[in-house]
Amino acid sequence: MSIRVGIFGYGNLGKGVELALQNQPDMQAVCVFTRRDPKSVKTLTGLPVYAAADAANFADKIDVMILCGGSSTDLPVQTPNLGKTICVVDSFDTHARIPEHVQAVEKAAAQAGKTAVVSVGWDPGAFSIARLYSECFLPKGQTYTFWGKGVSQGHSDAIRRVEGVADGKQYTIPVEEALAAVRRGENPELTTRQKHKRECFVVLKDGADAEKVEREIKSMPNYFDEYDTTVHFISQQELNEKHAGLPHGGVVIRSGKTGMNGENNHTVEYALKLDSNAEFTSSVLVAYARAAYKLNAKGVYGCKTALDIPPVDLSFESRDDLLKKLL
Amino acid sequence: MSIRVGIFGYGNLGKGVELALQNQPDMQAVCVFTRRDPKSVKTLTGLPVYAAADAANFADKIDVMILCGGSSTDLPVQTPNLGKTICVVDSFDTHARIPEHVQAVEKAAAQAGKTAVVSVGWDPGAFSIARLYSECFLPKGQTYTFWGKGVSQGHSDAIRRVEGVADGKQYTIPVEEALAAVRRGENPELTTRQKHKRECFVVLKDGADAEKVEREIKSMPNYFDEYDTTVHFISQQELNEKHAGLPHGGVVIRSGKTGMNGENNHTVEYALKLDSNAEFTSSVLVAYARAAYKLNAKGVYGCKTALDIPPVDLSFESRDDLLKKLL
Repeated sequence: MSIRVGIFGYGNLGKGVELALQNQPDMQAVCVFTRRDPKSVKTLTGLPVYAAADAANFADKIDVMILCGGSSTDLPVQTPNLGKTICVVDSFDTHARIPEHVQAVEKAAAQAGKTAVVSVGWDPGAFSIARLYSECFLPKGQTYTFWGKGVSQGHSDAIRRVEGVADGKQYTIPVEEALAAVRRGENPELTTRQKHKRECFVVLKDGADAEKVEREIKSMPNYFDEYDTTVHFISQQELNEKHAGLPHGGVVIRSGKTGMNGENNHTVEYALKLDSNAEFTSSVLVAYARAAYKLNAKGVYGCKTALDIPPVDLSFESRDDLLKKLL
Repeated sequence: MSIRVGIFGYGNLGKGVELALQNQPDMQAVCVFTRRDPKSVKTLTGLPVYAAADAANFADKIDVMILCGGSSTDLPVQTPNLGKTICVVDSFDTHARIPEHVQAVEKAAAQAGKTAVVSVGWDPGAFSIARLYSECFLPKGQTYTFWGKGVSQGHSDAIRRVEGVADGKQYTIPVEEALAAVRRGENPELTTRQKHKRECFVVLKDGADAEKVEREIKSMPNYFDEYDTTVHFISQQELNEKHAGLPHGGVVIRSGKTGMNGENNHTVEYALKLDSNAEFTSSVLVAYARAAYKLNAKGVYGCKTALDIPPVDLSFESRDDLLKKLL
């Protein structure tokens, strides 16, 4: 029997989930829910579209709902809410608020005998697992996370709010020397500026003052002032042609020591290079939707995260096959 | 309360476990078991040493026994045998025989209400997990494993068996062009020769024929004939000075596609660089010994592998702390 999946929210993430579900032999996409007028939404693969308000009525038609909303206002409400009637998965990524989110969802899901999996994607998610395993394997050491090279949508938005800017895109880039020092096992102490740099591609409005725009971007608090930032002015055409995608990625490195006097150094490195940030996140969501289904079938209820779930539960293959193939 | 750990077998792995246990706030090493005369064994940290034959009598003094024997003849007997009376962990690494090993240990441990964790280390173990996660995240794609740069003890032994060879060491090295093609997402089909090369450092016996030795090494079936092999002749002194360690490592790369027509490429890379093969394996064994203890306390019995165990169970930290810190 196929796992029946609903998609709640139909932006980049929802579309990515729809496409990712096509690669799963044991899952099927049932429909999309939207807060827009359902008639106005056309899905990539022809899935039917319903009003978000009706989602809870689909509890007997959907095994797992994948929530594809934003972390700032959507998910803190939607996940506990839908989690009461259906198994849900989300990519809630406001790191500081994850514990309270987990608590709220736990309360909703556990009582109802539902299984929720929250905060899965690549960070939090794949990177969190990489950190946990490597810290357990090398308890004496240090963990570093570098993001990029990739497009930061928050920083791109910030650029576009600057007066005189017509359009723009920002890349977060790890500083090569810092990465190299970490890989050599030197355990450096790194400031914000030493870890990442920022590169901006900016399209000016007619008559805008380039120097002023550049100064304003580079001095923007929180977003740019603590980084070495480069600003390139380009045409809208060049921006469209060369910077249309939303690639991202990054690396988690644990550098640790073993031996009688810590004389042996080891590094564990987990790196992602993603052409599409949203589509990779969607693929991770789909894998954890399967896990939510399997856990629920085993009677494991409440709110789980990537840290709580056995790897085997993400796979469509049987444990026997995985032992043969992957161990 | 501290988790009490016994060490069964006292070679490189057993010593590594002894040292790794010093870095665990919640575990303590109790003693070592050996098949040698216990009086002849002096441990690095002063642990008491007992006869291997007495191990089963320590069931009430030890929570988990870490088995540090070899995969060819020791573990297939020891793990099911000790697994009947005590929770055990091993690094059984004969890939083709893992399913039958799991079955034998399952039978022993499940009936006895014990928890066994087998085949943990880095491959199988950390690499197996990396393969599983990345295949679940990117079901449309290909997985590559490269080993090295590192010392292969099997190949070093093979060199030393060649007539005229006094001593020798062999490094397995991934072929850079192959790695680069995989990282670019080209999904190449690679032959054995295209993936790895072998570099040998050989000390000749007095009067040995260097050319003949080199020819014999390079043409050795299974070990060298399918690889591009380089042989360097050096002095015993140079071998001792420059090639004393047992470093190893490797990388698992999953390259996969998403999108409407597979237009977006993603790579997930998990890489290890280890100064000491044995000490890293030991550290992984210790982390899974903690997991065996925790699972047993929860009433999860039988034979588990790295694929079956939730990441959170490897850690000495509480789930709440991990959610805060790592997600």
